[in-house]
Amino acid sequence: MSKDINIGLVGTRFMGKAHSNAYARVSRFFELPANPVLHSACGLELDQVQILAKKFGWKNAETEYQKLIQSEEIDLIDICTSNDFHMPIALEAAKAGKNILCEKPMARNAEEAIKMYDAVNEAGVINMMIFNYRFLPAVALAKNLIEHGKLGEIRHFNAVYYQDWLVDPSFPIVWRHSKEKSGSGAHGDMNAHIVDLARYLVGEFEAVTGEQRVFVKERPIQDSDQKGEVNADDATSFMARFQNGAIGSFSATRMATGRKNFMQFELFGSKGALIFNLERLNELQYFDDTSQNDTKGFTTILATEPSHPYIRSWWPPGHIIGWEHTFVHQISHLITSISNKEEATPSFYDGVKCQLVLDAVVASAEQEKWVTIKEFDKN
Amino acid sequence: MSKDINIGLVGTRFMGKAHSNAYARVSRFFELPANPVLHSACGLELDQVQILAKKFGWKNAETEYQKLIQSEEIDLIDICTSNDFHMPIALEAAKAGKNILCEKPMARNAEEAIKMYDAVNEAGVINMMIFNYRFLPAVALAKNLIEHGKLGEIRHFNAVYYQDWLVDPSFPIVWRHSKEKSGSGAHGDMNAHIVDLARYLVGEFEAVTGEQRVFVKERPIQDSDQKGEVNADDATSFMARFQNGAIGSFSATRMATGRKNFMQFELFGSKGALIFNLERLNELQYFDDTSQNDTKGFTTILATEPSHPYIRSWWPPGHIIGWEHTFVHQISHLITSISNKEEATPSFYDGVKCQLVLDAVVASAEQEKWVTIKEFDKN
Amino acid sequence: MSKDINIGLVGTRFMGKAHSNAYARVSRFFELPANPVLHSACGLELDQVQILAKKFGWKNAETEYQKLIQSEEIDLIDICTSNDFHMPIALEAAKAGKNILCEKPMARNAEEAIKMYDAVNEAGVINMMIFNYRFLPAVALAKNLIEHGKLGEIRHFNAVYYQDWLVDPSFPIVWRHSKEKSGSGAHGDMNAHIVDLARYLVGEFEAVTGEQRVFVKERPIQDSDQKGEVNADDATSFMARFQNGAIGSFSATRMATGRKNFMQFELFGSKGALIFNLERLNELQYFDDTSQNDTKGFTTILATEPSHPYIRSWWPPGHIIGWEHTFVHQISHLITSISNKEEATPSFYDGVKCQLVLDAVVASAEQEKWVTIKEFDKN
Amino acid sequence: MSKDINIGLVGTRFMGKAHSNAYARVSRFFELPANPVLHSACGLELDQVQILAKKFGWKNAETEYQKLIQSEEIDLIDICTSNDFHMPIALEAAKAGKNILCEKPMARNAEEAIKMYDAVNEAGVINMMIFNYRFLPAVALAKNLIEHGKLGEIRHFNAVYYQDWLVDPSFPIVWRHSKEKSGSGAHGDMNAHIVDLARYLVGEFEAVTGEQRVFVKERPIQDSDQKGEVNADDATSFMARFQNGAIGSFSATRMATGRKNFMQFELFGSKGALIFNLERLNELQYFDDTSQNDTKGFTTILATEPSHPYIRSWWPPGHIIGWEHTFVHQISHLITSISNKEEATPSFYDGVKCQLVLDAVVASAEQEKWVTIKEFDKN
Repeated sequence: MSKDINIGLVGTRFMGKAHSNAYARVSRFFELPANPVLHSACGLELDQVQILAKKFGWKNAETEYQKLIQSEEIDLIDICTSNDFHMPIALEAAKAGKNILCEKPMARNAEEAIKMYDAVNEAGVINMMIFNYRFLPAVALAKNLIEHGKLGEIRHFNAVYYQDWLVDPSFPIVWRHSKEKSGSGAHGDMNAHIVDLARYLVGEFEAVTGEQRVFVKERPIQDSDQKGEVNADDATSFMARFQNGAIGSFSATRMATGRKNFMQFELFGSKGALIFNLERLNELQYFDDTSQNDTKGFTTILATEPSHPYIRSWWPPGHIIGWEHTFVHQISHLITSISNKEEATPSFYDGVKCQLVLDAVVASAEQEKWVTIKEFDKN
Repeated sequence: MSKDINIGLVGTRFMGKAHSNAYARVSRFFELPANPVLHSACGLELDQVQILAKKFGWKNAETEYQKLIQSEEIDLIDICTSNDFHMPIALEAAKAGKNILCEKPMARNAEEAIKMYDAVNEAGVINMMIFNYRFLPAVALAKNLIEHGKLGEIRHFNAVYYQDWLVDPSFPIVWRHSKEKSGSGAHGDMNAHIVDLARYLVGEFEAVTGEQRVFVKERPIQDSDQKGEVNADDATSFMARFQNGAIGSFSATRMATGRKNFMQFELFGSKGALIFNLERLNELQYFDDTSQNDTKGFTTILATEPSHPYIRSWWPPGHIIGWEHTFVHQISHLITSISNKEEATPSFYDGVKCQLVLDAVVASAEQEKWVTIKEFDKN
Repeated sequence: MSKDINIGLVGTRFMGKAHSNAYARVSRFFELPANPVLHSACGLELDQVQILAKKFGWKNAETEYQKLIQSEEIDLIDICTSNDFHMPIALEAAKAGKNILCEKPMARNAEEAIKMYDAVNEAGVINMMIFNYRFLPAVALAKNLIEHGKLGEIRHFNAVYYQDWLVDPSFPIVWRHSKEKSGSGAHGDMNAHIVDLARYLVGEFEAVTGEQRVFVKERPIQDSDQKGEVNADDATSFMARFQNGAIGSFSATRMATGRKNFMQFELFGSKGALIFNLERLNELQYFDDTSQNDTKGFTTILATEPSHPYIRSWWPPGHIIGWEHTFVHQISHLITSISNKEEATPSFYDGVKCQLVLDAVVASAEQEKWVTIKEFDKN
Repeated sequence: MSKDINIGLVGTRFMGKAHSNAYARVSRFFELPANPVLHSACGLELDQVQILAKKFGWKNAETEYQKLIQSEEIDLIDICTSNDFHMPIALEAAKAGKNILCEKPMARNAEEAIKMYDAVNEAGVINMMIFNYRFLPAVALAKNLIEHGKLGEIRHFNAVYYQDWLVDPSFPIVWRHSKEKSGSGAHGDMNAHIVDLARYLVGEFEAVTGEQRVFVKERPIQDSDQKGEVNADDATSFMARFQNGAIGSFSATRMATGRKNFMQFELFGSKGALIFNLERLNELQYFDDTSQNDTKGFTTILATEPSHPYIRSWWPPGHIIGWEHTFVHQISHLITSISNKEEATPSFYDGVKCQLVLDAVVASAEQEKWVTIKEFDKN
């Protein structure tokens, strides 16, 4: 009989809901060596936690995350809070010997992230970063193609992450607008994804130079006549050099009028090219430069075949999946790792590496020059 | 406290899984007046039923559907079997006073469908047909636009449903290849969807003329050296006249090489046009002929805004949903109807009306001429 | 030194302009054995003819087509008039020993077309039908792929031709609205193209069943307070059986709101599929079902490579060509045929075969049943 | 009767052909106050010049450009040579009082460009830079929308220009690989276009930071066993700040495997967004953030309506034009400017401004920091 893994979730808003959904679904579609149990959910407002708990089957609703960490039953602490709480919760959880899953960005800066990394390594607990877009069938297929040499030497990786929810100047101040709480704005929230994908698909970064902007400098404070100052970036763009010689350009913005959750990357190699767009996440465009001459072109692969990653668990070809499925896929790996006591990927190491790139971008924007990514090796 | 509605599911393959998933998820995302309970699942092979039951939380696993009908606890019989069992199960279930949900096509022919319709009406039970594509946000938005007069007088409705799983001649015979079991092939399975969408969006059919083909006439019998004869259509195309003066063309085929689950409709009206494609189901293309002259064009609406149908329950804009979500949406309506003892839509009446069109297409193909749709009025 | 071929153009409106452009450009981009000379243009209104003549370099401007036919210098009569004049001009021109190029549709009906065919055969003159979409690089590439067996056995050919210039009910009556002048409306004008492409790519038709509609039955008469009756079809749809077992659906309409010149065909074969759309005429979509499993999909071939048909004469890859270039390509073949005294393709034979399909569609719409295409063999 | 303007063309390869075509066609489609006459073409190899002359109707074929400048008949010198000849020809032509059209990039560097600018101003001759993509109907429409305030405050302008003809390492060395001859590689050739479009649509640049790469450092020398060193960039990317507060990212590369002539820009403003792609140059995507809430989305405007810029001269809606048409449009403006003795736009001033941005990118790449664009005001 399969083992239970008790989950303690901290944070019950957007990501709390997405993770709850994944825990509740994963065993229905994937054969796992253990069974995630929705043990305790924790959030700031009890009624909100109770609603989530009732909907998704969390056995306990709490408002103090320490209770989850202190619980002897809980195997995994899942951190879905605002970014300023990632480090304190992770440090305490590691100390208590809990396995940890953490939402991206890992922390407000690399200093915090490294402390978290050290803590989980000292404690010897399984640790994983949510970089859920690695777990899209189309992206995992892209990774397979690259690993099989289909793209050749990679020269360009250009990625954008476009949203537009800050175009409206009457959109009120939230924690994401405050550097203190979030570390950064679009940068940490959105560039974290495409930086991780770049590391996954291309390799390590060497140096970056970036630019950050706040276009709307004041926003109304909710339930108030006053305005508050926005100091977290609305948009951050940067160029990058990779260690393998490729170059890249990256742009994250919440001011891309008309784009809702448009994350696109283009990868050009000596033998082929790949294009992916999150708003059509079931599709991967692939150009095979080694194919028959007269019929070359970008092929739109509908990544819904049983042979494509993760798809066999779902529906027949052409019956597309959605954004939420990425969490189910990632959590299937996490549960397996915990059950098998194996390292999970992407781990806190990947979180630190991503954060070092993000921090270098911020430094480069301040200094107006290229900044080399700090070295950081696995223990 | 909200009432429970006990579900009895008959049929545990593709649709059984899709429905199980919907029952298990609907209360997590939608506020309902009652709570669906996964009471009993029934299928031909006990071990298969038990696996499904364990994964999705069905309390009981059965192999005789009569047990579900006889159970006093069960409120709803959900028919996901092969088409030849739709009528017998529905008649028994109605007699026992059970509410009924039935997969499309309603039956092997209109005669069967009408018997089912009469049975539920006599019994006074809530009845619903699964035409789940009505419950796509993009399609429900299309319906809203039409109802608000944005399309004007509709002239053309052209729809195709393309799959390609029968292109491979070594694909073995299954029940779907047998007219006796399925009533028809691509026609009942796929044209049923686009006929229902035509009724939903355009209005009632007047007459049709059709053409049916079996391209691969023999297929291997699984675990055998022999071949069996295919008598259910690989492809059925037809033209239609609507009562409101519009004309239509329809084509369903399992021989559309390269198309996996490509259902597309184009609707042209005197004031605008709509295009929808199931493989990009979060998008609706809309041409507004009354808009500013120089900037007219087809607008790709990403139907993931909170103001779009069903979306508020899910994720923020641009975080796309998948094919499976249609069942969650439809079942949210069914649960509400049962709880409120209100008529559900689409009902068995819609099932009959759809079946009458399908039957007329078959007759027209045999007779090589236009056939008028038989009249059928609500009791 | 290369020979001159003197052209006599009859008809100076849309097609007269498109043909003039082609004659004036062809020798600049294609190596031809002879040189087309813009000898005489003829139209109803002298000032219009003179403007055209001046712009494109026609040496003579005439208003009586007989003068062109009587001229000993003219080698080719090019018929771009309204459809009712195709036959009389062709008969006279053939009698005078002129080579003939004729715009589609060949005539108002097959009876006229056959007379034209007989006349050119009796006279032994080179004859060609303008079916210019055969000469699109992407379509010629499609033909190559089919001829090399890449598509396998063809099962489906579905084509539409959508325009929307008659959606506006205040659009006035023109000759194209009159059956007497044009033979038909959308049918002859637009279905002629897709019927010819079907013959080119799939093969001969066996039988058809069609439906015709006039949606706006009266239209204003220009410079008048009165309205005139429209009797030529706004839309004609039909289904077809091909001699090789394929089936097809066709739809031509001037009521496809939002579509300007959208001609699309989809071809599904046992080994692959093709999709083409005239509004993106530089692209051909190709699905190769024999390719690597995990990377199958529709490939968008940008048909602008030097190895693609006709492209070497134009610009480097990715520098797209336009609609007008089709005429240059077709006329390059015509000039070569005339110079080499070889049969041109598509010829009047192809015009007759196309017209017989069109006529059968009209008959089937009147009789409400399938109509077999009349046999017609080459002399 | 309309005046003649005698053209002297220097350079007879790709651009020479494209310009010849435009001069030969422009009067056929546009009403102009003067008539361009193809007086003299000049190139390095006489036989090549003679072929071009014969095809397009150049009266004289020369091999020394000085002859054209000395000719009293010639009104306009059109410079289509390699970049190292732009300045010397322009200086001589200006001195001789000739009006000048010059291909982009204006020169190998800003120093040369400013000399050219000073020369034409001193001479008081009409001068124009070929930035032909301003003259695409879709781009001119974009400009109209911006000028009418439809986009609001512009925040982002991201543009790429992708080709792939250098992916193949066996592609031989040409003048474009040599900094001495071309000034730069992809940068001057391709970034020149998107820098000009940025100035046209967004406004003046403030500062840039760039990165340049040669991926294939040696290439075979044609008709030789040896290899030559490539020193002109295969790819140049940069970020930009605009004077109006917008930020931009730009990338030009000849290593974008699968992309043939893919120039795309995305422009995000406070009220809307625009997307354009040169490989589908008849289309403009527009997002109107002020439109009806539920039907917002990117609208694909097919810029082929009579009301769209330049289209009235060509064909009916939906009959698309090609890449070559841009030159016809631009030259229609030039002929008008010369005839009316009015300043032409884009002028040598625009050429200098573009070159200053390009030079700043090169400097920033060398210095690894942001570089402010040098000021340069109109005389």
